[in-house]
Amino acid sequence: KAGQPPDLAAIVTGITNGSMNELAKAITYIESNSPVHYSYGQELLQSLLKRTGRAIRIGITGVPGAGKSTFIESFGLMLCEQGHRVAVLAIDPSSSVSGGSILGDKTRMEQLSRHSNAFIRPSPSGGTLGGVHRKTRETMLLCEAAGYDVILIETVGVGQSEFIVRGMVDFFMLIALTGAGDDLQGMKKGIMELADAVVVNKADGENKLPAEKTKKDYDQFLHMLKPSTKGWQSKAFTCSALKNDGIDDIWNVIKTFQSLTEASGVMAERRRSQAKDWVHTLISEQMNQYFYRHPYVKKHLADWENKAMDGAVTSAKAAEKLFEEVFKHTK
Amino acid sequence: KAGQPPDLAAIVTGITNGSMNELAKAITYIESNSPVHYSYGQELLQSLLKRTGRAIRIGITGVPGAGKSTFIESFGLMLCEQGHRVAVLAIDPSSSVSGGSILGDKTRMEQLSRHSNAFIRPSPSGGTLGGVHRKTRETMLLCEAAGYDVILIETVGVGQSEFIVRGMVDFFMLIALTGAGDDLQGMKKGIMELADAVVVNKADGENKLPAEKTKKDYDQFLHMLKPSTKGWQSKAFTCSALKNDGIDDIWNVIKTFQSLTEASGVMAERRRSQAKDWVHTLISEQMNQYFYRHPYVKKHLADWENKAMDGAVTSAKAAEKLFEEVFKHTK
Repeated sequence: KAGQPPDLAAIVTGITNGSMNELAKAITYIESNSPVHYSYGQELLQSLLKRTGRAIRIGITGVPGAGKSTFIESFGLMLCEQGHRVAVLAIDPSSSVSGGSILGDKTRMEQLSRHSNAFIRPSPSGGTLGGVHRKTRETMLLCEAAGYDVILIETVGVGQSEFIVRGMVDFFMLIALTGAGDDLQGMKKGIMELADAVVVNKADGENKLPAEKTKKDYDQFLHMLKPSTKGWQSKAFTCSALKNDGIDDIWNVIKTFQSLTEASGVMAERRRSQAKDWVHTLISEQMNQYFYRHPYVKKHLADWENKAMDGAVTSAKAAEKLFEEVFKHTK
Repeated sequence: KAGQPPDLAAIVTGITNGSMNELAKAITYIESNSPVHYSYGQELLQSLLKRTGRAIRIGITGVPGAGKSTFIESFGLMLCEQGHRVAVLAIDPSSSVSGGSILGDKTRMEQLSRHSNAFIRPSPSGGTLGGVHRKTRETMLLCEAAGYDVILIETVGVGQSEFIVRGMVDFFMLIALTGAGDDLQGMKKGIMELADAVVVNKADGENKLPAEKTKKDYDQFLHMLKPSTKGWQSKAFTCSALKNDGIDDIWNVIKTFQSLTEASGVMAERRRSQAKDWVHTLISEQMNQYFYRHPYVKKHLADWENKAMDGAVTSAKAAEKLFEEVFKHTK
């Protein structure tokens, strides 16, 4: 069957009928680094585009050990039991470098992964970081076309990853560790401003009181910031994913957020501007790839950087030389 | 004399001898949008590069009305009286659009502008925003070559301006308004994480106590954040630029910062990485210019954006089409 093009129309029909197999096949194309598979993936996505956009898109971040997996397991199971269809996608920035992944291991969410209403996809690995983000965004759209109505995008706080996830989702939450107020110190630049909610997890047993204290610290902090979403005051909550305590409250918060932002038009406006920003992000990534993969740049970039750092040439001179070598034929 | 190339060697000599006239001439070239003048400017800068880097570079930001001008007037005069040579440069993002400038008016700093040790340059206007930043950065280097040992770069909190100024300077300070703790609300995303110091101005008369309260609020906030500079705990201070009160304390803080970061190597490391980042920023700006000025993009960008926003095509498709039209001859 090699060389035989796949029956894309059949895959489209399969996905719209909710076939997990066809969905997985389409995602394989979206995630493939082969140009032919890429074009299959894009064609499928284009055919399904009108069926996308009906899910609530939720971004979840937090440092390793904050309990993201446990939270998603409890939260996802609760939603599946209520009849929702839940897709969990992971973005692991480390996977673009190492090919390995510190997220996305199905065994992390054992019960959820066995539920027929759940679909769990680990982070795409290999390729550029921009590629990893593109693949996750497009996989989200495929999942929506397949009828998943809650999308959870999980990421660890590495590099620009949260900013990119914020640019894909409607609601963004930070899972935080319990502790004294000092825990907030060393928090990553700008992350709090992205959050529509902070969830202090592991609020059980003798950790319950300190968790309440942490929640208050976060509330005070959030109150000083511009809201991440227009017309929405971001707040902190406690829960125990392990004890299944407070999980339903968080879903109620998200539902309130959804009705408010749908009514105000903020949700639709955000999605439109996300689609527009995405065009520019992809263009910028393509230009960067084109530039940084150019043989002259590969060979001479470090030299020019060093010359600029040593003060031997101006930064402008270094930039100009590199740019001219790459684009000299385009002028 | 038109067409006659300028005597660049004479300008270089003039600048190294501290001639204000020759410095102004060189800055005119740096700021010019004509390719010939641009190349004169670059040549001058290249010749002077070894004489740059000896000043302490200080970035100053704050909302309009926070008293940036009054602060710079008092602070600059004090330094000039101590024998320092002070260059004040402004970056006004609005000037790239309107050609006008809400900063950089010499009459704002009347006494300082008349002092023989001071040099005040308003924001370059016109051209792209990236151009405005490049011009300011290169003007800073020219000022250093001319013997100015304190550089103050002033900007208003618009767009990405503070992030770019942070990327040019050693020490970055935020001038803040006095008021209740609620004043911190609505603060711009990420700005606090950039600051090495917050200066609550106008701490005089009946404003003195509320200013102290605000200072404490900022201190508490800063304590929760990662430091902007490795090994330096950012703190808040009060001063009254009008009454000349507390201004010398802030200079002492900056001097302490300077000796600490010079001793630890953090200053040198930051400057090297700033020079490197600057190469990449300039390349990225040049690519963007090349792309967004392309006739096809000018004509069709809005169409493709709208198609992506309306869900008629995927964002990837829109990006691909635009990219291919621009770079089809380069493949």
